Amino acid sequence: MMYEPNMEVLSAEECITLLRQAPVGHIGISVGGLPVILPVNYSVVDDGIMFRTIPGSKLAAASASTVVAFEVDSHGDDGCSGWSVLVQGIAREVTDPIEREMALGAPIRAWALGDRADRVVRIEMQNLSGRRYG
Amino acid sequence: MMYEPNMEVLSAEECITLLRQAPVGHIGISVGGLPVILPVNYSVVDDGIMFRTIPGSKLAAASASTVVAFEVDSHGDDGCSGWSVLVQGIAREVTDPIEREMALGAPIRAWALGDRADRVVRIEMQNLSGRRYG
Repeated sequence: MMYEPNMEVLSAEECITLLRQAPVGHIGISVGGLPVILPVNYSVVDDGIMFRTIPGSKLAAASASTVVAFEVDSHGDDGCSGWSVLVQGIAREVTDPIEREMALGAPIRAWALGDRADRVVRIEMQNLSGRRYG
Repeated sequence: MMYEPNMEVLSAEECITLLRQAPVGHIGISVGGLPVILPVNYSVVDDGIMFRTIPGSKLAAASASTVVAFEVDSHGDDGCSGWSVLVQGIAREVTDPIEREMALGAPIRAWALGDRADRVVRIEMQNLSGRRYG
C-alpha cells in the first residue's frame, strides 16, 4: 500500500453492488489492431454483463469470443475521489432464444441505438476487481 | 447512419473542447496480455493527454511506447444521452526535464496517488474522434 495510501480494495460483493448501480459502463476492445473504449448501457445478469449492440457493428465483431475489459466508475466533482470496478472476461453473442429473450426483456437500453440494437452480447465475469479512492 | 439515428459525429475542435472539460478519463491498456481500463486524472497539453502515475506501477509499464486508448464521456442521469470522445495514440514517459516540469506544474492530479505519482506519461493524439448521442 506504500504508493496508494488512500486506496481501498473492494470485495467482490461490493463490486457487484456498484456494477448494478451505474447506468453506463466502458468496454475495451480491439478494432483493427487498435485499442478502443466505448460507453455502453448494460445490465448485470447472474455472473455476466449484458449489453445490446447492432448487427454488423465494430462492437459486435470485436466482441465475438474475445477477452474484453469492462469498467464502471464514479467520482466526485473534484475528480479526486471515487471508485472503479473492472471486469475481464470472454464476450460472446447470446444466441439461445430463451436467454436472449430474457436479456432483451431486461432493462438494457442501448445508447442511442434504438430498436435496431437487437444483438445481445454477454461478458462472463472471469476476473472482477474494484477500488475505492480518496 | 441507418443504424444510429440519434448519433452526431463531433468535429476535432468539439472533441478538444470536451476533453478539456472532464476531470477523469479512461485509459485502455494491456496488462499481462489482458485488456484493462483504468480511470485517470489528466490534462490536455498541446496535442497530448498527460497524466501522472507512480514508478513501477502496471500503468507505467504498460504505457511505455505502446498504442493506448483514452476515452472521456458524459451522460445524462438516464444513461441514454451524452457524448464520448476517443483518443488513440502512442504513450510515452516524459523524461525531458523542462517538459516534465511544465507537466507537473499543470493541474494534473493523480487519483488518490498523491505526491509519489511523479512519473509523467503523455499520449500523442494520433486519432481523435467523438460522438454525441440521444
